[in-house]
Amino acid sequence: MQKTKGYAAPAAKAPLGPFAFERRDVGDHDVAIDIKFCGICHSDIHQARDEWGGATFPMVPGHEIAGVVTAVGPKVTKFKVGDHAGVGCFVDSCRKCPQCEKGIEQYCSGGLVFTYNSKEHDGTPTYGGYSDKVVVKEDYVLHIPANLPLDAAAPLLCAGITLYSPLMHWGAGPGKRVAIVGLGGLGHMGVKIAHALGAEVTVLSHSMKKQDDAKRLGADHFFATSNPETFGKLASSFDLMVNTVSADIDLTPFVTLLKVDATMVVVGAPEKPAPLGVFPLIMARRSLAGSCIGGIQETQEMLDFCGKHNIVCDIEKIAMSYVNEAYERILKSDVRYRFVIDMATL
Amino acid sequence: MQKTKGYAAPAAKAPLGPFAFERRDVGDHDVAIDIKFCGICHSDIHQARDEWGGATFPMVPGHEIAGVVTAVGPKVTKFKVGDHAGVGCFVDSCRKCPQCEKGIEQYCSGGLVFTYNSKEHDGTPTYGGYSDKVVVKEDYVLHIPANLPLDAAAPLLCAGITLYSPLMHWGAGPGKRVAIVGLGGLGHMGVKIAHALGAEVTVLSHSMKKQDDAKRLGADHFFATSNPETFGKLASSFDLMVNTVSADIDLTPFVTLLKVDATMVVVGAPEKPAPLGVFPLIMARRSLAGSCIGGIQETQEMLDFCGKHNIVCDIEKIAMSYVNEAYERILKSDVRYRFVIDMATL
Repeated sequence: MQKTKGYAAPAAKAPLGPFAFERRDVGDHDVAIDIKFCGICHSDIHQARDEWGGATFPMVPGHEIAGVVTAVGPKVTKFKVGDHAGVGCFVDSCRKCPQCEKGIEQYCSGGLVFTYNSKEHDGTPTYGGYSDKVVVKEDYVLHIPANLPLDAAAPLLCAGITLYSPLMHWGAGPGKRVAIVGLGGLGHMGVKIAHALGAEVTVLSHSMKKQDDAKRLGADHFFATSNPETFGKLASSFDLMVNTVSADIDLTPFVTLLKVDATMVVVGAPEKPAPLGVFPLIMARRSLAGSCIGGIQETQEMLDFCGKHNIVCDIEKIAMSYVNEAYERILKSDVRYRFVIDMATL
Repeated sequence: MQKTKGYAAPAAKAPLGPFAFERRDVGDHDVAIDIKFCGICHSDIHQARDEWGGATFPMVPGHEIAGVVTAVGPKVTKFKVGDHAGVGCFVDSCRKCPQCEKGIEQYCSGGLVFTYNSKEHDGTPTYGGYSDKVVVKEDYVLHIPANLPLDAAAPLLCAGITLYSPLMHWGAGPGKRVAIVGLGGLGHMGVKIAHALGAEVTVLSHSMKKQDDAKRLGADHFFATSNPETFGKLASSFDLMVNTVSADIDLTPFVTLLKVDATMVVVGAPEKPAPLGVFPLIMARRSLAGSCIGGIQETQEMLDFCGKHNIVCDIEKIAMSYVNEAYERILKSDVRYRFVIDMATL
């Protein structure tokens, strides 16, 4: 076992603080990673505060992990010491269910092992990336392209793939009008990726405040949803919408902005059920869908795509000790666009 | 102009009664039909009572029309006198929008002309099938296969295509587990068509009351949604669900019955927005979609399919004067499964 330093929530809603624990020794198929940076995802807060239920403590959050390989097991073939490596939201899956067989392990029905607040198949609790090292089976480790800075690449492992996967699955590309709803950690990645895919990108944000930012990130158009004219003006105009808003909003008027046969994909998860009028679905064969991160192969594809297009997150780098304050600022949407913890400060 | 007898709602919520009006003379591209039977659709009630807003009166409802061709215009090529013909929910469209070009005229964005409670492109009000004759452009008239009885075939023009279209669009067929939610006028057509398409069909009904009926119609399985065990037992088990229920129900538990990447299609329209928890969409990339009747080509395909498989509706044939009572019985779900007006009684 290897002594590991981290930051943990000792109980629901208690502030995070230093926590010492152990990682397993490097097994045959394991990759050991020296964590350099870890992004803060909104779901870290939900889980650290047990807002989704079933949380186990102490909890070391963090699933946007970027670092450098320090050791590999004797049977590892895909990684070598010194490689830039990433770990996302899960570190194992059943490898046997229909979803694992299709490479969409994120929907594994046989036992997905999340990077933290979960258990390995042998029952060991998993601890996340707010820590100085991690040991993960090589099949669940990603290569981070050498041209991407590790700090700004870290959030690609969750925020990046969360947007890349639905944009690819529902065919964003040249000639397609894509709307990104909400310009936060998820939304700003959506703009960059959809733009790089060649789509015509519109940002729908509550106010006009982030217009300049959106244009700089690659948006072609920007509209405020607080302006009642927006919905009339944009009626039936999008081939695809990705809704990143996790606040409780009425989805119905957004659905009316879709063309016939088009889909709005929800990737932000409001806590309460949202009211939905089904008429706008019926009258134009529209769909409302959900999407959750991506599989390992697709996550690697996303990282390679980002490497090729020089896409990383816009980040604010913080010290480990700032994490509780960062959580509060995230809840106020006071970050452009992702906090990343510098593990050198641990 | 031709004198026409019908039954109309004189105002919102007033009972229907006899109404005399005129149909246009048969034009170059027109088909004149002697209406033999007309089904009663739940949407007739919604519109006759102006529950969707914007209704115009007097209103002659009816868009499940079956009859015999009595005259054709000089340029008509697809119909001849004596043919069995049907008219569904619309009698014209713009023919130029992307949807009309794709043959999905039901989603026409350039001006769909509904069979009643609508206006022709020249401004003439349209009157529906609770009447003794109708004149319709040949491109919007359907052939009813000769082996199908006209009375029981009439509801295929709306109830039939409303189920056939989503079952085809989302790939119902051999090896697919399909659930039909609600066993009424729409649902019972869903069971027959999905069964004929080779799917494994499950009916989800509020109680066990209609179990025998469902099996007779072609269902393989039947579950009561009032039994709380149903949702646990059927979790993640369907490739496709078609929800025909127009009562206000919580859609969330139904969505959890879909497999990964599967879709629930709503064809019944509750009046109030339904609460929808988006987590079950996100966690398995599920979709909630809507679907509205079908295009002309697809409606003909459905009629030919029904002719081949001897599929018609289960009906209760009524006299025209019974229509107001029939409306009340429909609101109590007291019909198995569709009222059809015998126009000989007009």
